Amino acid sequence: MVDSCRHCTSCREGLEQYCENGFTGTYNGPEQGTGANTYGGYSDIVVVDEGYVLRIPDGLDPAAAAPLLCAGITTYSPLCRWRVKAGQKVGVVGLGGLGHMAVKLARAMGAHVILFTTSPKKREDALALGAHEVVVSRDPDAMAAHRNSFDFILDTVAAPHDLDAYLVLLARDGAMILVGAPAEPHPATTVFNLIMKRRQIAGSLIGGIAETQEMLNFCAEHGITAEIEMIPIQQINEAYERMLKSDVKYRFVIDMASLKQDAATAA
Amino acid sequence: MVDSCRHCTSCREGLEQYCENGFTGTYNGPEQGTGANTYGGYSDIVVVDEGYVLRIPDGLDPAAAAPLLCAGITTYSPLCRWRVKAGQKVGVVGLGGLGHMAVKLARAMGAHVILFTTSPKKREDALALGAHEVVVSRDPDAMAAHRNSFDFILDTVAAPHDLDAYLVLLARDGAMILVGAPAEPHPATTVFNLIMKRRQIAGSLIGGIAETQEMLNFCAEHGITAEIEMIPIQQINEAYERMLKSDVKYRFVIDMASLKQDAATAA
Repeated sequence: MVDSCRHCTSCREGLEQYCENGFTGTYNGPEQGTGANTYGGYSDIVVVDEGYVLRIPDGLDPAAAAPLLCAGITTYSPLCRWRVKAGQKVGVVGLGGLGHMAVKLARAMGAHVILFTTSPKKREDALALGAHEVVVSRDPDAMAAHRNSFDFILDTVAAPHDLDAYLVLLARDGAMILVGAPAEPHPATTVFNLIMKRRQIAGSLIGGIAETQEMLNFCAEHGITAEIEMIPIQQINEAYERMLKSDVKYRFVIDMASLKQDAATAA
Repeated sequence: MVDSCRHCTSCREGLEQYCENGFTGTYNGPEQGTGANTYGGYSDIVVVDEGYVLRIPDGLDPAAAAPLLCAGITTYSPLCRWRVKAGQKVGVVGLGGLGHMAVKLARAMGAHVILFTTSPKKREDALALGAHEVVVSRDPDAMAAHRNSFDFILDTVAAPHDLDAYLVLLARDGAMILVGAPAEPHPATTVFNLIMKRRQIAGSLIGGIAETQEMLNFCAEHGITAEIEMIPIQQINEAYERMLKSDVKYRFVIDMASLKQDAATAA
């Protein structure tokens, strides 16, 4: 997000990501006023209004900090909005780019963090990243052992899946927040699972500029960055294919120095 | 609800309706301890622990107050929980036993109340009950005019229907609360509609004992009761058939004096 209307209620409240007139995305978004396209950050210089510029705190590796601007804030914002705090039981569904950040952040906030995955082989990684427990979601007994117990579940999975399986794990007044947007809807949930424990399902989108800076500062304070694999831009197509196969731990970052190398080669 | 375990977290917080060991329903519920069945309130005397007895305030007609213990509290509780207040824009979906109470209560709380119905013929009744506006939900233009504008929508309809049609009417951080439990799930909702405005869907179940008394007091203060049609118990089968056809404004209440008449006849 590189701009927004700056005068709607959401913008004035520092929630530019919910700009009522539509924010300007970094990639292929309409510029405010002109409506011209933005062309993204795959460059060594980008012109952005100072109100939309963030400061990477000293001590954070810039490459490993880069994904914080998306995966970091997308998971930090709902954790804050729903007031996750020390001692609470927090579930994270899926261990990808978003999920691995959610595990680190929720752990740093003092929560008891349980990672849900369909892949038993992700157990060691999840524990190393900060999860206290790992539950394989295909194991009905393991799932049943956690019924009615979670304060908060962050669902990072963008593929359609059964939400009821997680809703029933929420305690009374528990919240499940969806940050993955599947192309097709998730299967319909059972209203009864919402009514009987006053549970809620909500969605959340990145974060505002002030909150994003707060997240960066929080990460610096707790020594948190994303797990990344840095590639030269020349390998982007291969990286994209690997990403589609979930063959990345956990975000690719493009080294912009390689852009000049490319330009030099082309010249 | 005539009893609950009294020691779980929810009971201790006055949220007996979410009793973690299962509350005792008035009708056909398991008694605490013995597990024996309860047999309902169709009688002139019922034995209930004093902790689960409510006082109908002076000035409320007992017959018209009776449905407050279900339709009243079921709609009052979420209005309070989600902090509906004066000046907010509140939608009520469906004008039945629950919906007509929601209109009265939300109006008394100072909200701007809009009733959604599939039946244009309910317009006059809804306005007379306190709705400021009525929107026929089958009219796409009328629905579109309210996009992104509601703070809170209470959905009282127990038949499966399209929730997305209402989700898109919620403003940022708006909440849609489901109090009707359909036998089959509603069609799946679009995650995008939750994410883009941080909207939420939740469920809610009656209310706790203290909150139910608070609701009764609120109703007495504002002169609110249910719209009822009182019948002798001898007409219960006919009333049931009419209820199935939505042919009641808005709740049947059985005159318990007629029970004795029946006993006398039988004798």
